Amino acid sequence: MPTLSRKGAQMPPSPIRKLVPYAEDAKRRGIKVYHLNIGQPDIETPAGARAAVKNNQETIFEYTHSAGIESYRRKLAEYYCRIGIELSTDEILVTEGGSEALFMALTVCLNPGEEVLVPEPYYANYNGFAMEAGVTIKPIQSTIDTDFALPPIADFEKHITPWTRAILLCNPNNPTGYLYSKEELETLAEIVKKHDLFLICDEVYREFCYDGLEFHSTLNLKGIEQNVIVADSVSKRYSMCGVRLGALVTRNKEVYNACMNMAQARLSPPLLAQIAAEAAIDTPQEYFDNVISEYISRRDCIVEALNKIDGVYCPKPKGSFYTIVKLPIDNCDRFAQWLLEEFSYNGQTVMLAPATGFYVTPDAGLDEVRVAYVIKKEDLLAAAKCIEEALKIYPGRKNK
Amino acid sequence: MPTLSRKGAQMPPSPIRKLVPYAEDAKRRGIKVYHLNIGQPDIETPAGARAAVKNNQETIFEYTHSAGIESYRRKLAEYYCRIGIELSTDEILVTEGGSEALFMALTVCLNPGEEVLVPEPYYANYNGFAMEAGVTIKPIQSTIDTDFALPPIADFEKHITPWTRAILLCNPNNPTGYLYSKEELETLAEIVKKHDLFLICDEVYREFCYDGLEFHSTLNLKGIEQNVIVADSVSKRYSMCGVRLGALVTRNKEVYNACMNMAQARLSPPLLAQIAAEAAIDTPQEYFDNVISEYISRRDCIVEALNKIDGVYCPKPKGSFYTIVKLPIDNCDRFAQWLLEEFSYNGQTVMLAPATGFYVTPDAGLDEVRVAYVIKKEDLLAAAKCIEEALKIYPGRKNK
Repeated sequence: MPTLSRKGAQMPPSPIRKLVPYAEDAKRRGIKVYHLNIGQPDIETPAGARAAVKNNQETIFEYTHSAGIESYRRKLAEYYCRIGIELSTDEILVTEGGSEALFMALTVCLNPGEEVLVPEPYYANYNGFAMEAGVTIKPIQSTIDTDFALPPIADFEKHITPWTRAILLCNPNNPTGYLYSKEELETLAEIVKKHDLFLICDEVYREFCYDGLEFHSTLNLKGIEQNVIVADSVSKRYSMCGVRLGALVTRNKEVYNACMNMAQARLSPPLLAQIAAEAAIDTPQEYFDNVISEYISRRDCIVEALNKIDGVYCPKPKGSFYTIVKLPIDNCDRFAQWLLEEFSYNGQTVMLAPATGFYVTPDAGLDEVRVAYVIKKEDLLAAAKCIEEALKIYPGRKNK
Repeated sequence: MPTLSRKGAQMPPSPIRKLVPYAEDAKRRGIKVYHLNIGQPDIETPAGARAAVKNNQETIFEYTHSAGIESYRRKLAEYYCRIGIELSTDEILVTEGGSEALFMALTVCLNPGEEVLVPEPYYANYNGFAMEAGVTIKPIQSTIDTDFALPPIADFEKHITPWTRAILLCNPNNPTGYLYSKEELETLAEIVKKHDLFLICDEVYREFCYDGLEFHSTLNLKGIEQNVIVADSVSKRYSMCGVRLGALVTRNKEVYNACMNMAQARLSPPLLAQIAAEAAIDTPQEYFDNVISEYISRRDCIVEALNKIDGVYCPKPKGSFYTIVKLPIDNCDRFAQWLLEEFSYNGQTVMLAPATGFYVTPDAGLDEVRVAYVIKKEDLLAAAKCIEEALKIYPGRKNK
């Protein structure tokens, strides 16, 4: 039997995957499991997008243009213009989710073995895309002590080597919920310029900014127009994660053309997804206002409930719909498994995402978990209650 | 401005791409262009698949299981069973088109720099997937003199080096239309076994076999069950190229799990595509009977018309809906461009796929083009007439 390649053998599994059997087993035992581990919102997909799919008149589900349907790209350009980003349609490449955009960016910007700096903790699937592209992620520590602000520039400079080719940022951040300020981004732009790096920015949570704070796109940073590549997605914006549609956006023609060659190899982004997404762009502002106010009230609810628990610290995130929470525990992997395997309170328990999955630095995040507030408030409160009760009896509790 | 990676700089463009502006220009000049260059069938997507999309009741377009919706995988297993391939659902991984399946297979089976043997001419986009995976394609010549039969085993053995890890086959073949016999595949299985290689087979044209000939899947080859990985797709089977749905099929658990890790990084195959494809599996046999008889009559029509032209040789392919045609010309790239740029007959011309795009061996295929018979018979005949007239006056005509 032939053996796997090194990439095949080392491809990182989803950090949640090992918990799934425990969650399934808990459900089999009749326990209600609150899912704080997932990024799948319970918000309805906009009615207009759903209607466009139902009313489509296609008799042949044909390939589209490899860069996406022209009319969809025009509407995307209008959407970006509305939020203050001036782009032409040939700076937008429609992709199979934000995932494909990130894989393309890493592939065309970095040679195998070269390095991309990423503030840690970071979205676990970056590890998979980096492995596929053969590139190395160098983490730069951000910490819960500063609510995960951009690490000091000195930390970036310390990690820049002759192999460093790019910085990868997620703004607003998954998993921390941190929203980078204009000043932080401008500071970052200076390093990018000074060291002639690519700046790859995952901006898929751009619509989810709270407390009147404004989102600032890396596409509007002055002086590094040729360095910036943005990965975008309709998944969260329109609560349509399953259609698998994103975009790679860059003003760098060389990068765009190289990604376009990759896009032509896989022929076409998904047609039905584009039909849904093109209609979704016309979603009335009211939909977003409702969604944002729902997320704010969920955030406030879970953050308050968690901070009331003895020994727990939960920052109040300004964006996305995640937060990293510090718990008085020995080991988040053990705690998350214990919650599903041994614990229940009134027939209920919680599934959490251990934060170790978002760190590569050994032992980092051991006492942290990621919470996604994408479920109803009453469920969030019930989940927080479970965590409170669990911490009273968890054998690995610290500083009791 | 930072420079591209080597992969970014070298990613091969679609061989057709450079002709597109000439075709657009011809259309602007009022010339009707018959497209023999494309693999987008004009056959309607099955009504059941279209109805399933229109009648979907999803209020949230959610992520599906990373390996595909369970019920869809069960129906896929039934489909394979019906065509004589026994599989369980956990040997089927639903992918973003056959493209993703091929990229996954190359990534988990071959280390960067290792080699995959591919009978040449081959589907041009294999070059893109190989570039992305960092692996090297070693072509093994098949020729029009034998209507592109499997090259002699001695040719394979001659090319096997310590770096050879896999053989990649397309059956029925794009671009040649060749359908490999059971005997040819069994011979291939012997080399695969002897040298402990992976056998990656692109079987997306499996439904398109003509003249009563039977398709034989590499999944049914004895003794190499752990070596075979099949890339499948619904694109051609149900004429739904645009939904972007395929499958990676393997009985090798290690390969499957490694691909599953890649699948989890990109989260989910497209939901709406899966709704369409699950319904498509119930398409009545009558649909396929009609499609196949339509393709046979188109094939007979174009093959006969082309072979009537002085100096032209067109094999009669047994599968898929392509054929490679030998023309009395100096250079197929020049001829294809000339057809669009300088030629017209009764206000009509033809767009062909130069066969050089399907070869990497220098100068191979210079006097060949690929023809796709996916358009109506009257258009195929008009296109053949254009070719006939063009060859009378083309300046690079050979052996006049």
